[in-house]
Amino acid sequence: MKWVYIEDIAKYVGEKVELRGWVYNKRSSGRVRFLLIRDGTGILQCTIFSPEKEHPLFDKFEELTQESSLIVRGKVKEDKRAPGGYELEVEDIEIIHIAKDYPITPKPHGVSFLMDHRHLWLRSVRQHAILQIRAEVIRAIRDFFDGRGFRLMDTPILTPSACEGTTTLFETKYFDEKAYLSQSGQLYNEATAMAFGKVYCFGPTFRAEKSKTRRHLLEFWMVEPEVAFATLNDIIELAEDLVVYIVSRVLDKRKKELETLNRDTKPLEKIAKPFPRITYKDAIKILKEKGFKIEFGDDFGAPEETILSNSFEKPVCVTRYPLKVKAFYMQPDPENPDLALCVDMLAPEGYGEIIGGGQRIHDYDLLLQKIKEHNLPIENYQWYLDLRKYGSVPHAGFGLGIERTVAWICKIDHIRETIPFPRMLYRMYP
Amino acid sequence: MKWVYIEDIAKYVGEKVELRGWVYNKRSSGRVRFLLIRDGTGILQCTIFSPEKEHPLFDKFEELTQESSLIVRGKVKEDKRAPGGYELEVEDIEIIHIAKDYPITPKPHGVSFLMDHRHLWLRSVRQHAILQIRAEVIRAIRDFFDGRGFRLMDTPILTPSACEGTTTLFETKYFDEKAYLSQSGQLYNEATAMAFGKVYCFGPTFRAEKSKTRRHLLEFWMVEPEVAFATLNDIIELAEDLVVYIVSRVLDKRKKELETLNRDTKPLEKIAKPFPRITYKDAIKILKEKGFKIEFGDDFGAPEETILSNSFEKPVCVTRYPLKVKAFYMQPDPENPDLALCVDMLAPEGYGEIIGGGQRIHDYDLLLQKIKEHNLPIENYQWYLDLRKYGSVPHAGFGLGIERTVAWICKIDHIRETIPFPRMLYRMYP
Repeated sequence: MKWVYIEDIAKYVGEKVELRGWVYNKRSSGRVRFLLIRDGTGILQCTIFSPEKEHPLFDKFEELTQESSLIVRGKVKEDKRAPGGYELEVEDIEIIHIAKDYPITPKPHGVSFLMDHRHLWLRSVRQHAILQIRAEVIRAIRDFFDGRGFRLMDTPILTPSACEGTTTLFETKYFDEKAYLSQSGQLYNEATAMAFGKVYCFGPTFRAEKSKTRRHLLEFWMVEPEVAFATLNDIIELAEDLVVYIVSRVLDKRKKELETLNRDTKPLEKIAKPFPRITYKDAIKILKEKGFKIEFGDDFGAPEETILSNSFEKPVCVTRYPLKVKAFYMQPDPENPDLALCVDMLAPEGYGEIIGGGQRIHDYDLLLQKIKEHNLPIENYQWYLDLRKYGSVPHAGFGLGIERTVAWICKIDHIRETIPFPRMLYRMYP
Repeated sequence: MKWVYIEDIAKYVGEKVELRGWVYNKRSSGRVRFLLIRDGTGILQCTIFSPEKEHPLFDKFEELTQESSLIVRGKVKEDKRAPGGYELEVEDIEIIHIAKDYPITPKPHGVSFLMDHRHLWLRSVRQHAILQIRAEVIRAIRDFFDGRGFRLMDTPILTPSACEGTTTLFETKYFDEKAYLSQSGQLYNEATAMAFGKVYCFGPTFRAEKSKTRRHLLEFWMVEPEVAFATLNDIIELAEDLVVYIVSRVLDKRKKELETLNRDTKPLEKIAKPFPRITYKDAIKILKEKGFKIEFGDDFGAPEETILSNSFEKPVCVTRYPLKVKAFYMQPDPENPDLALCVDMLAPEGYGEIIGGGQRIHDYDLLLQKIKEHNLPIENYQWYLDLRKYGSVPHAGFGLGIERTVAWICKIDHIRETIPFPRMLYRMYP
C-alpha cells in the first residue's frame, strides 16, 4: 500500500493508502472511534467503525495515547463534515510506539515550561503555522533576489574583526588567534558586490546582547543585499519592493496558517509601495509630540520604535540618523556631515525595526579616519580598505531580520516562537 | 539614460544605455580603443572610435587602469566579432575612481598571495564561474527539497553539546555557560522531523580540525534532510535523487561557467540512477586488492576515499561501516550489531565523501546506553532522548557538504575556491 502524506490526501480519494504519523487527539461516539492523526504535513481524521460492540481495532484505539506513533491503512473518503474535508476509513492500525505521559497536554502551560520542551512544542498546530510562514518568508526572499539577478555569496561566520561594535561579540579561539562570530555579513558583502555587482548573503548572525526583550535573539537569521553603484534611495526602493513581495507571498500562499494564528490580514493587505519616509529629525519631533523625553542625538530604543511604528499603517523608513549613533562605515550626508545616509525600516503595528541599512563610505581617507576614530585594529581592516583603493564606487545595502519580520507578519508577541530553537539570554536548551 | 547590466545587454540592441563597472582590460588598434568592462554580471567590449588622432575619450582611455571604476554610455550593437557577440559604441565615459597598482595582474601569482587578496581575487573570471556554480548548486538543493514537501527548519549554531565527537569543537562563552559551534544540525533535525515529517536544515557548520588537506574547511555549508519513518534505503534513494538533480541542473544552467573552467562534462553527464552500492566490507576488499594496508575496523582517510572514488564512474554509496568508527546515534544493523545502518557517498574522479548519513537509533534504552558509553553529559541530551520517549519512530537522514560537491562538479583541485571566504587552518583573513 502506498505511503502518502496528509497534505496530498485529496489526490487519493477512493484509494487505499498508508499514513505514518502520530496521534494528535482521539474521541469516541457510539460505535465510531475518531483518531486525529498528524504526520507533520497535516492532520487527518481517521474513523474506525464497527457494527459490533467489540472490535480488535477498538482495542488498539484504547491503547493509543497522545503522540503515540503508528501506521494507519485505509480508504480515503471525501467528507464535508470532517475537518479539512477528507477522512480515512481505517482498515488496519500498526502501533509503532506508545507515548507515555506526553508532557504538553491540551491544558495551558507556562512559557518557561514550553521553552524547556521546545523539541516537543514544535509539534503543535500554532508552531506549525508560524514555522511554515517562516519557511515561506525565506523562500520568498531567495526568489526575490535570485529573480533580480542578485548573486548569493555566503559570508563567513568566523571573522577576525567586529562589524557592529565590539560590545556584543561572541569570541572563540581560532588556533592561535581570536575569532568572533559574525554580527553581519556586510563588510564581506561589500567585497563580493565589487566583484559581482549585486549580491546577497543569508545566514545566521550573532549578537551577545544582554537584552531580554521580546525583539532580541542572540542568534538570528538575516538577509543582506549589497549593490555596487547604489545610493541610499536605490536601496530604500529595493527594501520596499522586498517587503511588499514577502507580505504578498505569505498572503497568497499561507492563508491557512494566518487563519490558524487568527491574524487579521487587513493590515497586511495595505502593505504597498510607496512606504512613508521620514527623517530622524522628523521622528524626534513625532516622539516629542507624543511626550517622549528625547533629544536630537539620542538613539531609539524599543519604546520609541513602538510609538513610531504605531504612527503609520505601513512600514516607515526613517533616514539620516546622527552619524554618532551608527556604525563606523556609514557614508555622511553631503548636505549635513553629522548625519548618515542610512535608513531603518520600522514595521507597523508596533513591531519596530526590521531593516537597517544605508550607503557605505567609499572614500579611502575618510574610511581610514573612521576606523582610527573607532579604535579598530587597522590590520584586520586592510582588505576592507582595499575595496576603496581599487576601483571604489558608491554602494549601499541593508539587512532584514527574518525573525522580526516573521513576528510582525504572524502578529505574535514574542520573537522566540519564530525560529525552531531560539537562543536567548540564559537560554540555550534544547 | 538607462543603467543596465551586461547580462541583459542583448535586450538593448540599438538602444543607448549606461553601464557601471570596472576596467577588466584594454587595448588599442589604430584609431580604435577597446575597453573590456566588467560589471559583475558579465564582461562587455566597449569601443571608442575616432577619425581624428586626438579625441577627449582617447585621453580618458589612457588614464584608465585595470579595475578602475567608471560609467560608460553608448549604443549597444550586435557584433559577431566581439567576445559574447555584443559591444558598446562608447559615447561618454565618466571616471569614478582610478585604481593604482591593482595587485592581481594577468601574470601568475602564488596561492598564498591570492588567498591574502581573496577580496580582490573574487573579481576574476575563474572565481566568478566557480561561485556562480556554487549559487546554482544551492538553489538546486533548495528547489529539490522544497519541491518534495520538505520543511526548511533552521537549526541553531550555538549548542550546549557536541554532535560529531568532542575533539573538533569551537567553544565560546554563552554568559555563564559554554557553547559550541554546531558541527551538524542533525540532532535538532530529528526533533523537527518528528514535528514536520520531512525537514531539512541548510547552514554553516564548524569543525576545528587540524587538517590541512584540499578537502577540509573549518567552516563549511551543509544541507541536511531528515525523514521520519525513513530507513537507510529510503535515504540512499533520496541522496541519489538529490545528486542527480544537482548535477543535471548545473549542466543545464551553468554550461558557460563549466566551459570557463575547462570542465570536461562527459563524466558529469553519466551521473544517473542507480549509483553503485557497496558495503564497507566490500570497500576493504577493494582497498586490499589495490595494495592498501587496511584491516576491517579501520576508518577511511583521504587516500582510501580517493582510490574507492576512482574505482567507479558514478558516485558510490558505501554502507554499513563498523559502529565503532561512527557517531553515537547510529542505528545498528539488525543482521550484524557491530555494523551501522549508515551510508557515505563518495563522488567519482577521486573526490571522495560528499554525503554521510544513515538511520538513527530510535530505541530509548539503546540510545541512553550509547550516550553513557561515549561519556556524553546526559543532561544536555535529555531533549534528544525525549524524542525516543514520545512516539519514537525509525528515521534517517544525511548531510551533503556544499563545498566538496562544488569542488567535484567544477573539478578543481582545492576546496578553498568553492566559498567566497574560506576558513582554513591558520587562515581567517580576509
